[in-house]
Amino acid sequence: MVQRMGAPRADIEALHRDFAAGRKVALSRAISLVENEQPGFRELLRRLLPLLGRAHRIGITGPPGAGKSTICSALVRFYRERGEKVAVVAVDPTSPFTGGALLGDRIRMNELSLDPGVFIRSMASRGSVGGLALATGEVTDVIDAFGFDRILIETMGVGQSELDVTAAADTTVVLLVPESGDSIQAMKAGLLEAADLFVVNKADRPGAERMARELSMMLHLRMGKTLRNVPAHHGVDLRRVQAPAAPPLREDAKPASWDPPVLQTVAETGRGIPELAQSLDAHRSWLDTSGERQRRRRNRLAERVRDEVERRFRHRLWKDLQALDLIEDAMPQLEQGSMSPYDLARTILQRANAAPESDAD
Amino acid sequence: MVQRMGAPRADIEALHRDFAAGRKVALSRAISLVENEQPGFRELLRRLLPLLGRAHRIGITGPPGAGKSTICSALVRFYRERGEKVAVVAVDPTSPFTGGALLGDRIRMNELSLDPGVFIRSMASRGSVGGLALATGEVTDVIDAFGFDRILIETMGVGQSELDVTAAADTTVVLLVPESGDSIQAMKAGLLEAADLFVVNKADRPGAERMARELSMMLHLRMGKTLRNVPAHHGVDLRRVQAPAAPPLREDAKPASWDPPVLQTVAETGRGIPELAQSLDAHRSWLDTSGERQRRRRNRLAERVRDEVERRFRHRLWKDLQALDLIEDAMPQLEQGSMSPYDLARTILQRANAAPESDAD
Repeated sequence: MVQRMGAPRADIEALHRDFAAGRKVALSRAISLVENEQPGFRELLRRLLPLLGRAHRIGITGPPGAGKSTICSALVRFYRERGEKVAVVAVDPTSPFTGGALLGDRIRMNELSLDPGVFIRSMASRGSVGGLALATGEVTDVIDAFGFDRILIETMGVGQSELDVTAAADTTVVLLVPESGDSIQAMKAGLLEAADLFVVNKADRPGAERMARELSMMLHLRMGKTLRNVPAHHGVDLRRVQAPAAPPLREDAKPASWDPPVLQTVAETGRGIPELAQSLDAHRSWLDTSGERQRRRRNRLAERVRDEVERRFRHRLWKDLQALDLIEDAMPQLEQGSMSPYDLARTILQRANAAPESDAD
Repeated sequence: MVQRMGAPRADIEALHRDFAAGRKVALSRAISLVENEQPGFRELLRRLLPLLGRAHRIGITGPPGAGKSTICSALVRFYRERGEKVAVVAVDPTSPFTGGALLGDRIRMNELSLDPGVFIRSMASRGSVGGLALATGEVTDVIDAFGFDRILIETMGVGQSELDVTAAADTTVVLLVPESGDSIQAMKAGLLEAADLFVVNKADRPGAERMARELSMMLHLRMGKTLRNVPAHHGVDLRRVQAPAAPPLREDAKPASWDPPVLQTVAETGRGIPELAQSLDAHRSWLDTSGERQRRRRNRLAERVRDEVERRFRHRLWKDLQALDLIEDAMPQLEQGSMSPYDLARTILQRANAAPESDAD
């Protein structure tokens, strides 16, 4: 309740008013509210729901060193020259100690952020990739509602969890460099299934041409395989989300297919950036005409419900019930083996069920 | 209930008897039972609890192409020559479509598995990294209880989620190759915090010496930083586990420090493998003498309780309550915006609380 007093509901009204008036300071405050799950954040998100879906959300992911920040900067400059308003959400799901962009990236980004048509926000790890994906989705919603034309979501890494973060995107770009290892390894990392576009960056280095060719070949192989085995392979697939026991949504009609192109860029010099922007637009058009945009939106809504159910449950468990104390208190019995983790878990869950929900937001 | 009839509780007794008698077919069956969460799996795990903690659990992770499988094979051969029994758990948290080891790795592993003192098990993605980490921990428990001396847990990738999987390990080895990108990028990936040992593999390639030196330097920088800012930086740290809202366990006494060594190997030829095995033993000794083993075991127990609480909750939500149907039914209202995901989530959670727990296991 102390928490609630710190930011009473009345603030949300004022914040929303400033936000709707296009004040950037309100945008920043709204994002912080949502990112930190402060009281009233759900109320704010509810109010913003009708404003969603105008921005083109572009996820950019790839292994460390592939040049994600450089590509982002180049795209920002490109879109700004066309007069579009651009936001960047930089997500680093890795180390809470060392995390964040390299110094050079930071400086470059800082320069861009002097432009009033550019908004840049970093999101640090919240100790949980699942939580980070949810927070990224909600922060992106806030930015979308504010009225940006493009939102670039830059995520570090190539694992499943990083791909989950890009689930907030309409269009996912996977960045590789000639040295990323051979294409078979890229395939192993599950990237083929996630990407709407591939970019071989640093294409002035040796091996770029070959890598692009190999990727294209594997994509064709995959398409054949996919059509046989895996009906819904684009975008957010509920079979891949967090809850392990959850079955997929009823099968939607298959969208008209999209062949992920493989582009080559040298982001440092700007080579290939116009072509990349063109491909991004082509993908956005395809989303609209194929009905895929609507399908992805449905998946995102369903995902949001699921994430929110789990967040509420976790909040009740660890905050309201202080379940960690129950575990600590039982630690001697757990260590002696006189109580199993499975029995203690059942007890905790029973108590969680009985507890009333304090969080009435 | 149909599920329950397929494997009645009586089977667990028989299975446990065969398992205790050292029959490998019982080991395989026990693993499948646990991995697939079939009825009785908790009962089996409870029975095995007193047998845990004998094996040295060695996690091996690193970026694609670093040679994880080759290092594993080399270590298996090394330990077998010393007469130790070795198990390998190969975890691939990536693509459910393309997943699994490369053909060459498979063949090498198949050859090893002809040796009766070797046991190899692959774990595929379960559509969820969180679920995979839990399953990996439980499967490793089963193998430990069976009586292996070493369990190598090989995981693909460098993301946080892959590190979660290695949380099942006593000792975590992070593998890099000279081409892994510069050390700053390695640091960015959060590897420095997770590793007990670093191995620069393919050390006959150019740049190995430099990379090892840089890593060592950064480790020293980190140690300084760590001692100031981050009290518990080794092993499973509850601040990094799934539940975003969970506070850390009360601070334990700080363990005597361990300086992660940086080794160089050429796994293909076996160069550096004896030194690696020696370092692994040194770390195991340190775990015992420093009290760190006990601390990690406590963390693992607490983690297991938390994972189990969430698994039970999810099971009730998605299986018992069929909550996905509720989401589907509400999709028109969600799409129109006449209902927010947040309201629907609250409704679902209220119904989940009211539902009785069917899973009495």
